[in-house]
Amino acid sequence: MKTIRTFDVADMEDVAVGGAVLGTGGGGDPYIGKLMAQEAIRKHGPVRLADVGDLADDALVVPVCMMGAPTVMAEKLPQGDELMRAFGALEQRMGRKVDAVICIEAGGVNSTTPFVVAAASGLPLLDGDGMGRAFPELQMVTFTMFGVASTPMVLCDDKGNALVLDTISNQWTERLARAATVEMGGSALLAAYPMTGAIAKKSMVRGTLSLCARIGSTLRETRAAHGDPVAALCALLGAQTLFHGRIADIERKTVGGFARGRAVLNGLDQNRDQVLHLDFQNEFLIAERDGEVLVTTPDLITAVDAETGAPVTADGLRYGQRLVILAWPCDPIWRSKAGIDLVGPRYFGYDRDYLPLA
Amino acid sequence: MKTIRTFDVADMEDVAVGGAVLGTGGGGDPYIGKLMAQEAIRKHGPVRLADVGDLADDALVVPVCMMGAPTVMAEKLPQGDELMRAFGALEQRMGRKVDAVICIEAGGVNSTTPFVVAAASGLPLLDGDGMGRAFPELQMVTFTMFGVASTPMVLCDDKGNALVLDTISNQWTERLARAATVEMGGSALLAAYPMTGAIAKKSMVRGTLSLCARIGSTLRETRAAHGDPVAALCALLGAQTLFHGRIADIERKTVGGFARGRAVLNGLDQNRDQVLHLDFQNEFLIAERDGEVLVTTPDLITAVDAETGAPVTADGLRYGQRLVILAWPCDPIWRSKAGIDLVGPRYFGYDRDYLPLA
Repeated sequence: MKTIRTFDVADMEDVAVGGAVLGTGGGGDPYIGKLMAQEAIRKHGPVRLADVGDLADDALVVPVCMMGAPTVMAEKLPQGDELMRAFGALEQRMGRKVDAVICIEAGGVNSTTPFVVAAASGLPLLDGDGMGRAFPELQMVTFTMFGVASTPMVLCDDKGNALVLDTISNQWTERLARAATVEMGGSALLAAYPMTGAIAKKSMVRGTLSLCARIGSTLRETRAAHGDPVAALCALLGAQTLFHGRIADIERKTVGGFARGRAVLNGLDQNRDQVLHLDFQNEFLIAERDGEVLVTTPDLITAVDAETGAPVTADGLRYGQRLVILAWPCDPIWRSKAGIDLVGPRYFGYDRDYLPLA
Repeated sequence: MKTIRTFDVADMEDVAVGGAVLGTGGGGDPYIGKLMAQEAIRKHGPVRLADVGDLADDALVVPVCMMGAPTVMAEKLPQGDELMRAFGALEQRMGRKVDAVICIEAGGVNSTTPFVVAAASGLPLLDGDGMGRAFPELQMVTFTMFGVASTPMVLCDDKGNALVLDTISNQWTERLARAATVEMGGSALLAAYPMTGAIAKKSMVRGTLSLCARIGSTLRETRAAHGDPVAALCALLGAQTLFHGRIADIERKTVGGFARGRAVLNGLDQNRDQVLHLDFQNEFLIAERDGEVLVTTPDLITAVDAETGAPVTADGLRYGQRLVILAWPCDPIWRSKAGIDLVGPRYFGYDRDYLPLA
């Protein structure tokens, strides 16, 4: 398979920054995944990025990811071995060699975890993922919309326990894997959604890992050139600036494993005298300015430091921070009825319809 | 393999009564398992009981059972198919044919569930089990003391979901299977603890299924002959009568999936002016008369109707019932340090040592 580019240890810095931007406030800290990926690359050599278009239709493709509470992951750093154990066990269960690794999500910690398996196995990593961003539940992937079963799935913990799931729906996989992850101490590593090259071609959100790297390098280079990192980021993403303001209040509660809450920002500059409400459930899901809804999930909302353009997660929101809130349209695949049913505002319990961002 | 005896549809009535007696107040309602077993025998023919001593040392033996809250099982009657699915999946995982089926526990619902698999598979059922009574957790089996791993284990629900567990300890199996069972709706069916004939010979509590049948027939025949069923039961079990009294109070709470509580009995006849406290956590665990501990787990405590000798579960305790409380020694295998660590009073949170019943 043709290699688009390779990723070495230093390149992972850019990818992790991009993963935090596409993480839309959630998805877990890419810092952890970055450390794991760098360790694996140091040990096994660079990761090759490949295009799904170059893959044979009958190839076997397997996504890997971390599951659980971002705060737990930060305290209980996985070694990377668990990912390879899950991957190896799924390969064995499938009874054939895997041809390529892919990302479940391009946002958050799982933008970088698959680099561990790609490095350790020597397999190419496909440029893209199953979300084009981050979402909190296992069934919230484009693969679900194309009828890909999430099982057989292998779930491993840091202690040496392993589960193989065979479920009747991807929603059931989420339920059973979530319960197991909680019992395993709050985080686990998994390989799931085995699929053919043909299905991967149809269902993947393409180019998102290249984009992650480009987001990181754009911010880094613009800062070095004393440019405007936020403007450069907007240009790269095709994002609009929703709001420029300072955090005045944050409400948080943990409900059913979700970090739910709402941040209130008081406007600055062009948003002077305006107020923005930002609702999050791990990810930022709804932005409302002076009572008017501006953006809803699955369109992407990200908070960045007004000065440096550095992404700020929902966990990292603090009183007084000066932020710019950016938004841009999701991949068109999510805008279907099936997509909105899976990841639209109503699924998250909000009593409002999806409002497509222009 | 030599057949000790066979069990037809009618025989299951006796087994279920015996299972309730050995259930020591818990273990789930054998009525449900009886219905499943009778259905399977009707469909596939009688079950052959065999002695583990006649088994080849390299034979493969697999226990099957139901896991979960007895109250849920009663409302969500399993079809029996789930048991065969779990059994079949474990057989496939082991890569060879199973030679005999055994019971995890001789008390409660799981004294009868393995008859379903024995009938449907045509395999012999071994006369014995892994407890000689009922206990609430998966690792609480004599097999654990002989180093038998509970995994690979297959757990199936009524909807069609299945899990294969590979854990680092039988305690971890309990934790992960319990979490999955709760998520599956409160009950699940499983095949686990695959073991050789040699290990089964060393670790099984033998003869407990014959004993179940004999308990049922003894009670039935003694009633028919207008004899004293409680006295007949005591003679059969080598049990002593701890107390004869009437339920004056019952305290119940559900803690971590356990039906915990304490019943207070006011004495009658020879126990007049005495009070018995009966502590339960699913099973009856401690009996205390006028402040003096008489019996503790793992010795067996059972409550029977004073008139008919019919066993009464902890769930079935009601104000005003006239009961006789019986107790008899557990299998010697439980009296080792390892046994007491696994199922003694301290494991259940009581601040007292095991008091071996004479």
